[in-house]
Amino acid sequence: MNRIITIGREFGSGGREIGRALAEKLQIAYYDHEIVTEISKRTDLAVDYIQRIQEKRPFPFMNITVGRSFWTAPSTVLEQQLTILKQESEIIREMAERSDCVIVGRCADYVLRDNKPFRLFFYAEMDYKLARCREKQHDSEVLSDRELRKQIKQMDKNRSEYYELLSGQTWGAKENYDLCVNTTNADLKSLVSGIAAFL
Amino acid sequence: MNRIITIGREFGSGGREIGRALAEKLQIAYYDHEIVTEISKRTDLAVDYIQRIQEKRPFPFMNITVGRSFWTAPSTVLEQQLTILKQESEIIREMAERSDCVIVGRCADYVLRDNKPFRLFFYAEMDYKLARCREKQHDSEVLSDRELRKQIKQMDKNRSEYYELLSGQTWGAKENYDLCVNTTNADLKSLVSGIAAFL
Repeated sequence: MNRIITIGREFGSGGREIGRALAEKLQIAYYDHEIVTEISKRTDLAVDYIQRIQEKRPFPFMNITVGRSFWTAPSTVLEQQLTILKQESEIIREMAERSDCVIVGRCADYVLRDNKPFRLFFYAEMDYKLARCREKQHDSEVLSDRELRKQIKQMDKNRSEYYELLSGQTWGAKENYDLCVNTTNADLKSLVSGIAAFL
Repeated sequence: MNRIITIGREFGSGGREIGRALAEKLQIAYYDHEIVTEISKRTDLAVDYIQRIQEKRPFPFMNITVGRSFWTAPSTVLEQQLTILKQESEIIREMAERSDCVIVGRCADYVLRDNKPFRLFFYAEMDYKLARCREKQHDSEVLSDRELRKQIKQMDKNRSEYYELLSGQTWGAKENYDLCVNTTNADLKSLVSGIAAFL
């Protein structure tokens, strides 16, 4: 069985950056945006559109339609969401079959649970995440601390809802991961070396 | 400033064993039971008695006495608990001043927060903890799975209450630690090497 490392992360914690560096260090495949590109190829939906669908609250109708009525909801968006979700899981499974790899987000730890992946989760204090987001911010979108904090919380809320919907588990609850790493004020390069050594 | 590693752990997760092995590997001091022995020396209370006081729910009167009335509670046990607590914190601080060290439990992560310790937390699935406790069980105390599970939960509840009382923080919440390690089915020896490498 291939060696699979899945990464869950709070928005702004640096988890994605660490994931990419970790894959480089271990010289194994890295999948993140590639998954969206692949869904796009298979569904004819535009990459931007898939991302927008994925980043928004998943399944807006889920709460008001239950049981059978769910399937009759006359929503193209909903159908597309289901298609994206199905494709995503299939692609993740294919990637895991292909070779050793690092997969960021997308509930991969749950989708690949039979492959016994090593499940990492990265988190950090809000002030640190705020500072990191601030650094990466484009000049064109100058948000106040309050707005940025709200955005960070919203992103995590979306991830959390997506994860819970798919897995029925609590996103970020340490029980669902093998190693949870606090990245607050950490030197990400040292952290990558440390995790690689741990693995 | 000395290098301090504090260890929080769920009962049965192997955290104490890992802590001791980690200190050996890093060739630094290890403090666990030593703290109780030291309290005993300074207070003339017997080691057994201190442990019994520590392992029980801390401060049984805390819930019914608030504000000033707390200090007038005519309880020798309560006074002894406060003495133990005060001595414990002092001893932990002295140990941290003395040399690099690993300190297991006793809210050391919070007591030493100004020393910026590296805060580890170990946890595991219940079945794994149950199996570990079963292995270490004396023949004289054959408990059913149900009883053992109850005992494990009670120990964690005590630790949790003790931690929250002292720190005002949630015991085991990943935000309060730098690295949270799931020990379920792990080879503890490899885990120690991994953590040492990470550090």
